[in-house]
Amino acid sequence: MQQPPDTDPLNPPQRTLMGPGPSEVHPRVLRIMSAPLIGHLDPAFIEIMDEVQELLRYTFQTDNRWTIPVSGTGSASMETAFGNLVEPGDTVLVPTNGYFGGRMESMAERAGGDVVHVDAPWGEPLDPDDVAAAFDEHDPDVFGFVHAETSTGVLQPQVSELTSIAHEHDAYVIADCVTSLGGVELRVDEWDVDVAYSGGQKCLSCPPGASPLTLNDRAMEKVLGRDTDVRSWYLDLSLLEGYWGEERSYHHTAPITNVYALREALQLVAEEGLEARWERHREMATELKEGLEEMGLEMNPDDEFWLPSLNAVRVPDGVDDGKLLAELQEEHALEIASGLGDLEGEILRIGCMGYSARTPNIQFVLSALEEALANQGYEA
Amino acid sequence: MQQPPDTDPLNPPQRTLMGPGPSEVHPRVLRIMSAPLIGHLDPAFIEIMDEVQELLRYTFQTDNRWTIPVSGTGSASMETAFGNLVEPGDTVLVPTNGYFGGRMESMAERAGGDVVHVDAPWGEPLDPDDVAAAFDEHDPDVFGFVHAETSTGVLQPQVSELTSIAHEHDAYVIADCVTSLGGVELRVDEWDVDVAYSGGQKCLSCPPGASPLTLNDRAMEKVLGRDTDVRSWYLDLSLLEGYWGEERSYHHTAPITNVYALREALQLVAEEGLEARWERHREMATELKEGLEEMGLEMNPDDEFWLPSLNAVRVPDGVDDGKLLAELQEEHALEIASGLGDLEGEILRIGCMGYSARTPNIQFVLSALEEALANQGYEA
Repeated sequence: MQQPPDTDPLNPPQRTLMGPGPSEVHPRVLRIMSAPLIGHLDPAFIEIMDEVQELLRYTFQTDNRWTIPVSGTGSASMETAFGNLVEPGDTVLVPTNGYFGGRMESMAERAGGDVVHVDAPWGEPLDPDDVAAAFDEHDPDVFGFVHAETSTGVLQPQVSELTSIAHEHDAYVIADCVTSLGGVELRVDEWDVDVAYSGGQKCLSCPPGASPLTLNDRAMEKVLGRDTDVRSWYLDLSLLEGYWGEERSYHHTAPITNVYALREALQLVAEEGLEARWERHREMATELKEGLEEMGLEMNPDDEFWLPSLNAVRVPDGVDDGKLLAELQEEHALEIASGLGDLEGEILRIGCMGYSARTPNIQFVLSALEEALANQGYEA
Repeated sequence: MQQPPDTDPLNPPQRTLMGPGPSEVHPRVLRIMSAPLIGHLDPAFIEIMDEVQELLRYTFQTDNRWTIPVSGTGSASMETAFGNLVEPGDTVLVPTNGYFGGRMESMAERAGGDVVHVDAPWGEPLDPDDVAAAFDEHDPDVFGFVHAETSTGVLQPQVSELTSIAHEHDAYVIADCVTSLGGVELRVDEWDVDVAYSGGQKCLSCPPGASPLTLNDRAMEKVLGRDTDVRSWYLDLSLLEGYWGEERSYHHTAPITNVYALREALQLVAEEGLEARWERHREMATELKEGLEEMGLEMNPDDEFWLPSLNAVRVPDGVDDGKLLAELQEEHALEIASGLGDLEGEILRIGCMGYSARTPNIQFVLSALEEALANQGYEA
């Protein structure tokens, strides 16, 4: 017999979470996580599933019947979207303006799609004219874009313009709403988005593990009319239909506690009101942004593309971002993040999401950052 | 604006869970679920990941470096095993003696494999002679079997014989250990199993959402030497290697709370001791089995294939299993399950797993079952 390792009961440290996610979890959501389990086919759980679906529809602002939490973290809902919508041989148009466009490409290729691009620099949104030109050139079947780019802090405006272009070409639109759902204005039906997905651990302030996805009937018809099986059994929506639809038959064991948590996090959205919640994110992020600018720091995106839930600020000359982050972590137990990809070393990413989007957190991040910058000789 | 639904804060009911999973969660594991989050790249989280890996190795009785929790429920770890090991064109041998052999077939086909079968009736284990004959006939690349069949309550004995046959043919063995890990004797290294997977919500008594997987170096070499990409980005072990291996680079956001929970559930395994835990499951299940037999009920499997963690008992003549389960649910808030597939209507499935494997639960299920059977006119 191999012997057990010499480990103690778990006692994780406390952190202030102001990075690109996870955000801090609301105390009511933490509390529900320790509720005893019920079975995934229990009638009481079926009722909870119904309520999660209703609450998700409200939060996505959609009437879509196909609105469910996927049994995994945000990348699982993303792969469910691409893996189901994309059939082998489909042409898939994805953006190059951030980290998550690259992930869309990987997922679309693994689903058997042929990937083409619409270009924009990291840190800028897509230009509808470029999207229209890419449609004219490639005539894609599926078009993915990122509504709120976590890697660059850029909000994609003009979503309705993008979906109009796609629909004129009979294409399906998949929107990455990981960092917008529940924090930034998002209207799936009004903007005519076919498929949208998100994660729990951003503006919903829910532990990751059950991730929102919505598809309209048009998109679901494409999925149900596929010539070939979806390449994942776990994420196959035609099978998940049996569990989340009217039949309620067993597919896989749902992550019960994560569904509880999402249910409670969405209940908090409903209690606050979606528009009030968007407004709170904007107000809190404005407080953060003004504080950063008062320190002489510069936001990376233009004001019109500023993403309140994820604030990308330029690293001042002479400051070492790695050292800065380590000091915030070690001295202040505070998490913010550095840049990725094309913006590595150039920006800091400061989240303002969900339960983390409140004045004590904002003021703490501003004071800790000021101190850490001063320790590297930076002065406003 | 669509208005929010009229929902209240969540207050899930209490149940006694004696079905095929989820089992009841240990209070210490429930408590850790409400610990505040830390980031998935936080050095303290990396340490927790290391400890989870060590504790998983102990519980699987393996030295395998590639021992991780997959970011989803048990079917996700199952798909990770088949989706990574099976390449398009591989021949995959799967059993027909239960529900989960069928799921192996679906997953292997979606991975591009050609599926062949080794037959045995539902409710019986595989016969090594049949496995040898299937190897001689089909020369498969990958062989999947179910160590503990949740659908039939059958334990597969002679695992070493099965792995020997496979290795003589240079095939890889994948073992479904969903209902055995942490409850029934399982020795991955000693038995020479190449890949084993499990779930949290069975004998580990952990909420589902982070699911154990282990691969030996030989299996991982096949994965890393693939000619084509794994068809799932989310479950691609060559990418997960970057996060769980030495590099610690971002792949996807881990389900942080579920990792906490698994860490604590495995800590409880280490504190109890694995052999003592196997023995407790056997003792408690013996108490259950003897109680059932005293009521005149008959176990479905032969004694030598009896699976202590999942007790399959035959529905007596004249008893309606659906009505029985509904009464247990409604009158006693008690969950057990009916049969599936070939055994639908023929068996009841009573779990004896993890924290549910204790005398108060056993005695409660026996008395409630006796009462519900009497209400249908059954007498011992």
